[in-house]
Amino acid sequence: MGSLSTNSLSFLEPNSFADESKRVIDFIAEYYRNIEQFPVQSKVNPGYLSEMLPKTAPYFPESLDDILKDVTDSIIPGLTHWQSPNFFAYFQATASTAGFLGEMLCTGLNVVGFTWLSSPAASELESIAMDWMGKMLKLPSSFLFSGTGGGVLHGSTCEAIICTLAAARDDALRRLGGSENITKLVVYCSDQTHFTLQKGAKLIGIPPSNFRSLPTSFSTEFALSPETLRAAIEDDIKCGLVPLYLCATVGTTSTGAVDPIEEWGKIAHNYKLWFHIDAAYAGSACICPEFRHYLNGVELADSFSMNPHKWLLTNMDCCCLWVKRPTLLVDSLSTKSEIVGHNSFDPSHPVDYKDWQIALSRRFRAIRLWIVIRRHGLDNLMYHIRSDVEMAKRFEALVKEDGRFEIVVPRRFSLVCFRLKPKHESQGSELNRKLLEAVNSSGRALMSHSVVGGVYFIRCAIGSTLTEMRHVDDLWKLIQEKAKIIYLQDGN
Amino acid sequence: MGSLSTNSLSFLEPNSFADESKRVIDFIAEYYRNIEQFPVQSKVNPGYLSEMLPKTAPYFPESLDDILKDVTDSIIPGLTHWQSPNFFAYFQATASTAGFLGEMLCTGLNVVGFTWLSSPAASELESIAMDWMGKMLKLPSSFLFSGTGGGVLHGSTCEAIICTLAAARDDALRRLGGSENITKLVVYCSDQTHFTLQKGAKLIGIPPSNFRSLPTSFSTEFALSPETLRAAIEDDIKCGLVPLYLCATVGTTSTGAVDPIEEWGKIAHNYKLWFHIDAAYAGSACICPEFRHYLNGVELADSFSMNPHKWLLTNMDCCCLWVKRPTLLVDSLSTKSEIVGHNSFDPSHPVDYKDWQIALSRRFRAIRLWIVIRRHGLDNLMYHIRSDVEMAKRFEALVKEDGRFEIVVPRRFSLVCFRLKPKHESQGSELNRKLLEAVNSSGRALMSHSVVGGVYFIRCAIGSTLTEMRHVDDLWKLIQEKAKIIYLQDGN
Repeated sequence: MGSLSTNSLSFLEPNSFADESKRVIDFIAEYYRNIEQFPVQSKVNPGYLSEMLPKTAPYFPESLDDILKDVTDSIIPGLTHWQSPNFFAYFQATASTAGFLGEMLCTGLNVVGFTWLSSPAASELESIAMDWMGKMLKLPSSFLFSGTGGGVLHGSTCEAIICTLAAARDDALRRLGGSENITKLVVYCSDQTHFTLQKGAKLIGIPPSNFRSLPTSFSTEFALSPETLRAAIEDDIKCGLVPLYLCATVGTTSTGAVDPIEEWGKIAHNYKLWFHIDAAYAGSACICPEFRHYLNGVELADSFSMNPHKWLLTNMDCCCLWVKRPTLLVDSLSTKSEIVGHNSFDPSHPVDYKDWQIALSRRFRAIRLWIVIRRHGLDNLMYHIRSDVEMAKRFEALVKEDGRFEIVVPRRFSLVCFRLKPKHESQGSELNRKLLEAVNSSGRALMSHSVVGGVYFIRCAIGSTLTEMRHVDDLWKLIQEKAKIIYLQDGN
Repeated sequence: MGSLSTNSLSFLEPNSFADESKRVIDFIAEYYRNIEQFPVQSKVNPGYLSEMLPKTAPYFPESLDDILKDVTDSIIPGLTHWQSPNFFAYFQATASTAGFLGEMLCTGLNVVGFTWLSSPAASELESIAMDWMGKMLKLPSSFLFSGTGGGVLHGSTCEAIICTLAAARDDALRRLGGSENITKLVVYCSDQTHFTLQKGAKLIGIPPSNFRSLPTSFSTEFALSPETLRAAIEDDIKCGLVPLYLCATVGTTSTGAVDPIEEWGKIAHNYKLWFHIDAAYAGSACICPEFRHYLNGVELADSFSMNPHKWLLTNMDCCCLWVKRPTLLVDSLSTKSEIVGHNSFDPSHPVDYKDWQIALSRRFRAIRLWIVIRRHGLDNLMYHIRSDVEMAKRFEALVKEDGRFEIVVPRRFSLVCFRLKPKHESQGSELNRKLLEAVNSSGRALMSHSVVGGVYFIRCAIGSTLTEMRHVDDLWKLIQEKAKIIYLQDGN
């Protein structure tokens, strides 16, 4: 490609922009075509890349050919391939053509919609897309701009939680009459809640000793019982503390558990806690009528979040947050500035999204979500969810058919939690750790593990965009093959 | 394009991925070709878009043709065109072909590098690119992985500041021996510091009454004098408060002012404050030897941040943060989890970047910065900065030549602060507000304003990727034309 001429236009000249971009498109398409050939989890050793790349930046420009060659030779071998159809680890980060198209427009237009004025379409499309998504989830109108609430796109659940925690905190401190009361505020969740809540609570200044991670067990399928919650709140009140914030999860990370939203909502209401529902993973499933019941009681929440970048084909990153009282969010996060302007929240005016998030600057993520919804339609998005759940049911059935294995916690969505049954419970961890290691190190599939109620198990999260039934069948054959070897080694 | 067939593969099928993506590439290239035809600032009225789009999501898929037609008809008229060569407002968010290519790879690969293991190349390339960038800025080795520090990519300065504030806070609370001491901690900056610091300090629980925004004036060109700073710190100590954090700015938003880094660094050291340097805008210029002196004293800082997404052709979003003591960052932000694992910071091991930022999930931003650096080389990146500064010098000279105008604060980088001289000082704001409104409402250019020392002025920020000398000349003609009309109207 030769060197760039020293002409300011060449940095973004439309013809070379199109030519070079199309070469990268072809490169990515070829990556998708070949993706099954790569080991799902990278086999490189720590520090491998610094052996392959220079220690300092080049002084002169390098060609696109050279750069893409390095991506092939140096970067791709070091990737864990999240888009592989054989990726069954963590929760998926689903990509789609539509998500990619939307991201190209976001990056190509490269507008910064921190206020309405700084790019009106960016703010307005975000509000519209949030109402679309909210209606797809049948959220009550109290969360929608067309009702009395509103929504915003964040990059991650952690950001969404921090913003709502800060809004709750500042509202409480106003009522309590002094910032020294921050040491009295208490945050509640279960021991299955994503650690992002603990990180967020610490970040906004809640003393770590005021964070209540309450115990769950097999008896409630790792949902937190309302009795345990109420008792913890009562204890804290007796000690002179002030219950602040309660986070329920619809689809926990370890097992896909669902906290009892309605009962928690009533408790939150009684004790005046801010009630947040984190449905990062399973929220996407709730666009299907048969899963919507998991959100029953959402009308009792103050805020609700879910991540289309996980299970709704939206590419990284996209977290939807809806709040009932935008005023509280804006009161906590707004800033005055002569240059960018300032408005307090007024429901009759379009939104200045800088006051709904942590940062000032923001990308035009809304166009990505909008295109994902339009290009697929609700019909295909539901098909996508259902197809993953069907594959998970198939995998679950395969596990149940094999007497050596057991399902550890009932499957609700597309996550299957299983293990090899140990002869003695004390060997369970080691046995399954070996099995997981054998599967993952084969490079043919990647799963992860977790521990609940003292039981180590394997998580098979189904839902990568490219995964088909044949991949699930192959995974099961691989697991059986490795299990056989491990059983033989262990003399079983 | 017809509807998607209900086949899971079609969501990310390589051939249709390539075809549809190339159509969007052509669409964006055409947008760049036509960008000068659009009014720079959108002329839509609040709520315009909800009149044009449906209230609910479509049930069936829509064609790419229909979607792109809506982008043309409904979205583009509502954009303020940040990539227009006539965009002189705020600070630029510079796009480039290289930045776009890097972002396509980030979004196409769509890996989530929260830990080293979750995608080793993502973590390692980030560490390498941060060292490259740090060496381009001639940062001391105490900030580099090849030395004793390290760097991380955030989305925004606000995130970078929050993470360092939290690290400083938690370190101080450990030393003070209890979280109730949070109400004693004090944060210092000047009245020219970006409001992001105030937002960040409030977010991490510093009482708003402990935030010191110290006065600057024309006499120091809006840098904060060390004497004022030291006096404020002494006052707080006398009151039993604990100085925590000091933020200096290299290139303030209003005027491009530069705080005296070396003198502040000594004060921070004496009083044991965490010293952060925010060079969001002007940091990029410091890759040129002739601007590097503005960072003299950076070796006294605890952390340093700058945003390649502003002035270094990296597209949104990309903020570089370097810290001297990664351990403090990781101590404050790390989290344990069975699923994603946990390591405390160990300089001999690759980085788990989830412990260097707010969120767990993260995009592969490093590949964008890496390609921007390689495709241009340091040579072209310096050319880009110098060319913008040359254009700013030209604009400054034009202002100075016209007796009706004056430069309000000396220019340092590519931001020119100027105004129409009023007959009476009391008319200055109104006169320049009218001029700015006349220029901006013409649609032919966009500038912004600010107020320092009670003086309202116009900010002309030069540096959009597509801006050439002819655009600067046209802008000046436009300003003169509008000024003439306003003078006539005002009877001047």
